[in-house]
Amino acid sequence: MREEGPLDSLIKALARLPGLGPRSARRIALHLLTNQDKTMRPLMNALQQTAEQIRPCGTCGNLDLSDPCRICQDPKRIKDSLCVVAGVADLWAIERTGAYKGQYHILGGVLSALDGIGPDELRLHSLLERVRENPPEEIILALSATVDGQATAHYLTDKLEDITDAKISRLAHGVPVGGELDYLDDGTITTALKSRAAL
Amino acid sequence: MREEGPLDSLIKALARLPGLGPRSARRIALHLLTNQDKTMRPLMNALQQTAEQIRPCGTCGNLDLSDPCRICQDPKRIKDSLCVVAGVADLWAIERTGAYKGQYHILGGVLSALDGIGPDELRLHSLLERVRENPPEEIILALSATVDGQATAHYLTDKLEDITDAKISRLAHGVPVGGELDYLDDGTITTALKSRAAL
Repeated sequence: MREEGPLDSLIKALARLPGLGPRSARRIALHLLTNQDKTMRPLMNALQQTAEQIRPCGTCGNLDLSDPCRICQDPKRIKDSLCVVAGVADLWAIERTGAYKGQYHILGGVLSALDGIGPDELRLHSLLERVRENPPEEIILALSATVDGQATAHYLTDKLEDITDAKISRLAHGVPVGGELDYLDDGTITTALKSRAAL
Repeated sequence: MREEGPLDSLIKALARLPGLGPRSARRIALHLLTNQDKTMRPLMNALQQTAEQIRPCGTCGNLDLSDPCRICQDPKRIKDSLCVVAGVADLWAIERTGAYKGQYHILGGVLSALDGIGPDELRLHSLLERVRENPPEEIILALSATVDGQATAHYLTDKLEDITDAKISRLAHGVPVGGELDYLDDGTITTALKSRAAL
């Protein structure tokens, strides 16, 4: 059957999602069609509600039901610690650990010459403004340990040092918890050796 | 962030799709949210249109825009050959080859004592009725080469032989094209040997 029309559009829309290809998209489309009441309707409703109700927080850039978001509104969270992350996924990852109780600021990406992402494409201006208006005691640059992530961290450090005396830190590098040395790259092992901790 | 509300429902709805888990569902939800115009709207529209427009064909059970479906309506297709398949995915798989030009009948599954699927759960009654009313010359039972698939084929053969003189056939068993003997199970090699063809 030459698929055309709505089914074809559905498969194409699904295949464009991260981690899915034409084959898995076809499988999902078929699953949705054959279980309309149990899977298609709930998915449609959830999409609709999410699209209507979830918006970016004007302060930190997090996605939430309210603006400012729950984290920015929460009176129990520490106000003088600011954690800068590249995206919402990173914020979620840190929140899942429950190890951080301060504020966030989402950059919306990292600087990348290859992808043509300069300072103006990121939420950099609002970060500097926020730091100027409410100077935090500590700024944690929780960016990926990639070349682009580290370049962004250096750039941010330069800009932030001009306007604040806050302590600026980055995440520790080292052996992942549960990681085996055997499978680690040389760079990580070198870093872990250099930053070895006393027992 | 404790995800609650619509975003949580969306992630749950996505995680229920075949091949996706909580992690990939979260990734997709985030991708949808951060690219609303480019990915979320098209997906919502495609789902909506599919839900509204696609329906099962009353004759063969295929999913299509029209009832009877394009295959049942097509005057160019051979009318006296009927191919019985378990599901729509199997019909699509056969159609993609372009090797079959007859009619289809979708069973909606195979008999399975373990899953509690008996003859009444399948589109068996409509198959027998269809064969009785428009006796085809050949019936191809294109069911999976699993225990359940083959049991269903035997059951169907018994039922069909009572009401028609049509030639009843099944798909050939053997070495998959491009398959290496080394990786094949003993059953397939035994079958392929027994049904060896003259060169």
